[in-house]
Amino acid sequence: MDIAKLGEFGLIDHLTKGHENKNASTVYGVGDDCAVMHYPDKEVLVTTDMLMEGVHFDLTYIDLQHLGYKSAMVNISDIFAMNGTPRQMVVSLALSKRFKVEDIDEFYKGLRMACDKWGVDIVGGDTTSSYTGLAISITCIGEANKEDIVYRSGAKETDLICVTGDLGGAYMGLQLLEREKAVYYGQVEDIRKKIAEAKRDGDTAKVSALNEELANMRNFQPDFAGKEYLLQRQLQPEARGDIIAKLREAGIRPTAMMDISDGLSSELMHICEQSHCGCRVYEKNIPIDYQTAVMAEEFNMNLTTCAMNGGEDYELLFTVPIGDHAKIEEMEGVKQIGYITQENLGKFLITRDGQEFELKAQGWNPLKD
Amino acid sequence: MDIAKLGEFGLIDHLTKGHENKNASTVYGVGDDCAVMHYPDKEVLVTTDMLMEGVHFDLTYIDLQHLGYKSAMVNISDIFAMNGTPRQMVVSLALSKRFKVEDIDEFYKGLRMACDKWGVDIVGGDTTSSYTGLAISITCIGEANKEDIVYRSGAKETDLICVTGDLGGAYMGLQLLEREKAVYYGQVEDIRKKIAEAKRDGDTAKVSALNEELANMRNFQPDFAGKEYLLQRQLQPEARGDIIAKLREAGIRPTAMMDISDGLSSELMHICEQSHCGCRVYEKNIPIDYQTAVMAEEFNMNLTTCAMNGGEDYELLFTVPIGDHAKIEEMEGVKQIGYITQENLGKFLITRDGQEFELKAQGWNPLKD
Repeated sequence: MDIAKLGEFGLIDHLTKGHENKNASTVYGVGDDCAVMHYPDKEVLVTTDMLMEGVHFDLTYIDLQHLGYKSAMVNISDIFAMNGTPRQMVVSLALSKRFKVEDIDEFYKGLRMACDKWGVDIVGGDTTSSYTGLAISITCIGEANKEDIVYRSGAKETDLICVTGDLGGAYMGLQLLEREKAVYYGQVEDIRKKIAEAKRDGDTAKVSALNEELANMRNFQPDFAGKEYLLQRQLQPEARGDIIAKLREAGIRPTAMMDISDGLSSELMHICEQSHCGCRVYEKNIPIDYQTAVMAEEFNMNLTTCAMNGGEDYELLFTVPIGDHAKIEEMEGVKQIGYITQENLGKFLITRDGQEFELKAQGWNPLKD
Repeated sequence: MDIAKLGEFGLIDHLTKGHENKNASTVYGVGDDCAVMHYPDKEVLVTTDMLMEGVHFDLTYIDLQHLGYKSAMVNISDIFAMNGTPRQMVVSLALSKRFKVEDIDEFYKGLRMACDKWGVDIVGGDTTSSYTGLAISITCIGEANKEDIVYRSGAKETDLICVTGDLGGAYMGLQLLEREKAVYYGQVEDIRKKIAEAKRDGDTAKVSALNEELANMRNFQPDFAGKEYLLQRQLQPEARGDIIAKLREAGIRPTAMMDISDGLSSELMHICEQSHCGCRVYEKNIPIDYQTAVMAEEFNMNLTTCAMNGGEDYELLFTVPIGDHAKIEEMEGVKQIGYITQENLGKFLITRDGQEFELKAQGWNPLKD
């Protein structure tokens, strides 16, 4: 159905109908000039992210449901990264004419899956048109007790550096998707060339056969066998609220924390700079899934570089006092990768063969080519 | 300077350096995964707006400073429309490559002017690139006492309907800008045609004279004499926090309120639908500036239609108990335009000659052509 037919308010009704707010802090959701919230005993956390078609996502390989899911998760991840609990979300979309109501439904399906997973209410937003691609802007609101909030600036000398899950997978997933996209367009291009030749030769039978072949390319099945995990890392990242809960249960309060969206190297530098300290991280301790390793091999890429600089894993990077070493050691899904030093000792990666390399932020720069 | 040269974090530093947060409710601003706020005694209000180049603004006639100012004001206006006080803002920008650091400085200059006017702290955001135009997404956070919040749903039978300022000016300003843009491109087109002719005739002297004329078109001065107010209405709207303060001083609490962004007709219908009531508004009472009237005459447009359906005035529409009539009567900048009725009596405009016309929302539909 055409979105214009529903209109902005019809679309809002359509998207919100039948959805109840779940949080006591949500006083009033969609339908007025503002959403209203109530946070008498907590600090309010606010984070925002903007995702642009062609820059942050490519609709040739992410469907709208996954895109909705991911858009919500990356914002939810920022609330967890402050040791908070996500509660509300406002969602703005700018849509070009090619989108139908059914497309927005798909997007919202994914969005709601992510929000339902973490108990987040969608309380407002803005829906408008765009002359070009799809633009998504999400603001997520959360809460935390004042004393629980973890900033990037609290790391202290001797603190242990920890990461959750494994790294580099989302980046390898992207490489894989880009490769299959290139394969697909390569094959389409080949068929088109053959059609041109057949036309020149006046071979109408061949032209029609090739046109059929071209039409069948719609059913193109990329070769993802054995690589499902990498796709999932790229297309369906998970915010690590599970680890936040585990840390709380274990009585561990990180001294500094952030989520890994631009790459471990870049995020480590943020923590060190804001905490005025240095660090030593060990290559051998960086958690990497075997599929990531296999794929790096296949692409002839340096695995550690992928894990250090590949973005979008949305794992947590945090530091804890050295006294928590034993507790962290037995915690599933968390790996100790190094320790915090005095600032004047610099920021270094220690390779397997004992060499020291100064950390550089080669993370994704969204403002560069 | 190239934005890529600064990088995302360099740009953030550049934009935030030297700016202190002013509000006690702002605990932590730019620089971590989230901003942190503290609202122990108030309700928290959140509103968001997305502005897309080509859809919401045209950089051929709005400069970046005005655009920044307007982007902030339209969000601040939504907080006032709930009878709240704006406090924080997060600002996301997606920029295509043609923008330089100097452009972003201009945008922020306007943004900060608007924020400083109403004591709003810029506490975060996201800056990224865009393949096409400029996309702006702003979320504004405000506060209100629970008992002070005014929703759209509180209007009661016999309540007076009031509007602030005057209506239709922003819309006429847009018409004026569109006209001058057409004049400009018409002249450019004419010169280009003459150049093509002169080239065909081999008249190189004429070609060079015409090229000079074309270059001088950069200094094109549109004819805005006597119409400055309309331009200001379109390019530099003001959120009516002054009226919110006046109402508070006078001890008046509106029963329903919203800001007029899509046009009076459309907004009246929202209030009536959400309050389950009808209304009668009087054409003769609708406040219109004389420049708006002159311009409508010039464009051969129906003035009342412009005032009822022209958007972007960002004035306040509100209802008050009939007992406040005398107080409102003496309040400068507020006009009583009609009254609320029972729902079954419908929503009507009473023309100067006593005819009744049913209200229709012909306001701007951002999802339509």
